[in-house]
Amino acid sequence: MTGRGRFLAACAGRAVDATPVWFMRQSGGALPAYLALREHHSVLEIARSPDLSAEVAMTAATTLGTDAAVMFADIMLAAEAMGVELELTADGPVIGRPIRHADDVAALRTADAEADLGFVLDAIGRVRAGLGEGAAVIGVAGGPFTVAAYLVDGRPSRDQLAARRLMHGAPGLWASLLDRITETTVDYVRAQVGAGADAVQLFDSWAGALGPADYERFVAPWSRRILATIREAGGVAIHFAAAGAAILEQLGEGASVVGVDSGQSIGVARRRLGALPVQGNLDPARVAAGWPATSAGIDDVLAANAGRVGHIFNTGHAVPRDTAPSVLRDVVDAVHERSARLPAMALHGGTR
Amino acid sequence: MTGRGRFLAACAGRAVDATPVWFMRQSGGALPAYLALREHHSVLEIARSPDLSAEVAMTAATTLGTDAAVMFADIMLAAEAMGVELELTADGPVIGRPIRHADDVAALRTADAEADLGFVLDAIGRVRAGLGEGAAVIGVAGGPFTVAAYLVDGRPSRDQLAARRLMHGAPGLWASLLDRITETTVDYVRAQVGAGADAVQLFDSWAGALGPADYERFVAPWSRRILATIREAGGVAIHFAAAGAAILEQLGEGASVVGVDSGQSIGVARRRLGALPVQGNLDPARVAAGWPATSAGIDDVLAANAGRVGHIFNTGHAVPRDTAPSVLRDVVDAVHERSARLPAMALHGGTR
Repeated sequence: MTGRGRFLAACAGRAVDATPVWFMRQSGGALPAYLALREHHSVLEIARSPDLSAEVAMTAATTLGTDAAVMFADIMLAAEAMGVELELTADGPVIGRPIRHADDVAALRTADAEADLGFVLDAIGRVRAGLGEGAAVIGVAGGPFTVAAYLVDGRPSRDQLAARRLMHGAPGLWASLLDRITETTVDYVRAQVGAGADAVQLFDSWAGALGPADYERFVAPWSRRILATIREAGGVAIHFAAAGAAILEQLGEGASVVGVDSGQSIGVARRRLGALPVQGNLDPARVAAGWPATSAGIDDVLAANAGRVGHIFNTGHAVPRDTAPSVLRDVVDAVHERSARLPAMALHGGTR
Repeated sequence: MTGRGRFLAACAGRAVDATPVWFMRQSGGALPAYLALREHHSVLEIARSPDLSAEVAMTAATTLGTDAAVMFADIMLAAEAMGVELELTADGPVIGRPIRHADDVAALRTADAEADLGFVLDAIGRVRAGLGEGAAVIGVAGGPFTVAAYLVDGRPSRDQLAARRLMHGAPGLWASLLDRITETTVDYVRAQVGAGADAVQLFDSWAGALGPADYERFVAPWSRRILATIREAGGVAIHFAAAGAAILEQLGEGASVVGVDSGQSIGVARRRLGALPVQGNLDPARVAAGWPATSAGIDDVLAANAGRVGHIFNTGHAVPRDTAPSVLRDVVDAVHERSARLPAMALHGGTR
C-alpha cells in the first residue's frame, strides 16, 4: 500500500499492510531544513508563505517517512483572520486584547477562508501535488474551546480559568463567541478539504479541562458542526484533546477518528469507542528518553491496540521541539515493521 | 452532628445529617486575616511558623464554616527538609538545582519529621486543640510523582517532560528518587497523624499526566506505601490528582477517599469506585462566575452523587486565590442545607 492509501484505510477502519504513522508537530521541530529556514523567518512568516510552509510539511513527511504530512499552520491562524491581534511565543499564543465583553465578540469578523487564509489553502494544494500517493495531507484547525480559551485568557494558562469563568457566568456571551469561532472554522475546514486535505485534525487541546456535562453543553454542539463539515466535504475528521479520558466518547461523536492522549490506554479507549478508529498514543517523553524506552513504548501501544483495524500510530501529545529527526524516522520504521508482523494484521483486520 | 463528626463519618462511608464541606486551598487566599499577615510575612514564613500557620488554618475553617480545616503547608516543605533549595513563586515551586543525576539523588537527605518539620506538627496540634469537634484537621503531603516532577523539571511545567523523560530513560534512578521522597513522606504523614491530623490528603496533582500502565509501574507502589502509612497511623488517607479520570481506580487503591477533579462526573466516578468514598468536585470556575453558576454547580454535584453516603463536598481543583470568602461561606451553607433535604440522606444513606 502507499502511505496515503494506508492512512486512509486505517481512518476508514479497513485492513492495512502496516500501521500508518505520523506525529503531532512533526512539521518543523529539529528538522535541519526547518532550522535553516528559521534563521531567516519567524514561525508566522513561514506559516503565511504557501511556498515555505508547504516545503516544511513535505520535507518532514519525506525525511521521517511518515504516511501523512501535517500542515505547518498554527491553530490560531483562523482567529488572527478574525481580526485578533496575535503573537506566537515559545509558550504559545498571546492575544493583544483578550475577549471579555459582548463588544469584544461583536468586534470579531467572520473570516473568509479563500480571502483571508488562502495561503494555507495554497500550501495544502502544493503538498497534495508534491506528495502524491506517498503521504496523505492533514490540515489543522483549532477546536472551539481551545481557541475561545486563548482568546479569553489571553495567554497560555494551566486551567483556562478566565474562559471557564466567562462560560459559566455569561453563557449567552460564551455561545455567541463560539458561534463566531465556529462560523469561521467551518468555512476554513471546508476550504482545506476542497484544497486537497485528506483529513483535518480538530485540536481541542484543552477541552479535557471540562467535565462531561460542561463539555456537552458548552463545546460539543459547536465541535460537532465542524466535524460534520469536514466529513460532508469528503475529509477525514480527526478529533483530539490533550487530556480527554473523561470525555472520550463525546470526542468520538461525529468524528471519523479520535486522537488518544498518552494519559490513556489505547486498549481501554478502543473498548470505550467500539469500532471507531483511534490515533495515538506513544508518550513523547519516551521518544525523548532513549531508544530502549522508545522501542518498549512502541511495543506497548501496538500490544494495547492488539491488531485491531482502525489504528493510526502517533504520539499522544506533540513531540518535543528538540526531538532528533533520526529518532522519529526510527519510530516510523519500527511501527511499520512490527505492525506488519502482527497476526491480526496478517488476517487483514480479523479481530475487528 | 459536629463538623468533625460529619467529616469523619462521610470518610468512613457512614450516614451523615448533611454533606461535609471543605475547599482545597481554603487556608489563605483572600481571607482578610491572611491578607493582613501577608503584608508582613512571606508564604514560607507563615508556613514555618506554628503560630501563624495554625491561625490561618483555624481562621479559614471558622470564617467559612467548613467541616474541616486544612493545614497551611506547601506540599514541597518535605522536599525542602530533604535539603532541596526551594522558592515559592506565584506559579509554583522553583528548585535551585534540578535533579538529573544519581549524585543529585544521593545528595538528598531523609528528613526527620520531628526535627525538620516539627513546625507543621506543632501547628497541627494547635489546630486540633483549637477547633475541637468543630472541624476535622487535614494535613497535606505531596504525592511522589508531583514532588519528583518539581524536583526534576525544576519549575512548574505543563507536561513534566524532563521528569517523565528521566522516568523512562533511567528507571533505576527514578525508583531511587521515589524511594528517597517516599522515606521522608512516610515519616512525615505518620507524624502528622500522630500530632492530631484526622486525615492527610496526598496531593499527586500531576499524576494524571501518566497513562495507567506508567502510573502503575512508576508511581503507584510508592503512593500506596504512603497511603497505607496514613491509615495504619489511624488517619483518613485522601488521594487526589488534578486530571485523574484515566487512573481513578488506581488512585482509589489503598486510599480511604478519592478526590475527584472537575474534569470528571461524580456519578461516573462513584460507579467506577464502588463503595469507596469520594471528595469533590465543584468547578472552581463556577465559584468565580457569580452565584447563579455556583448554585447550579452545587446542585449538579449533589445530584450526581445522588444521595449516596461517603461524599465529602469540595471543589474539583484548588479555589482561585482571589475568591471572596463570603462566596465560599455561601457554598458551605448551601451544601449543608440542600444535602440535609436530600431523600437518601434522610434515610441515613439508604442508597448505599
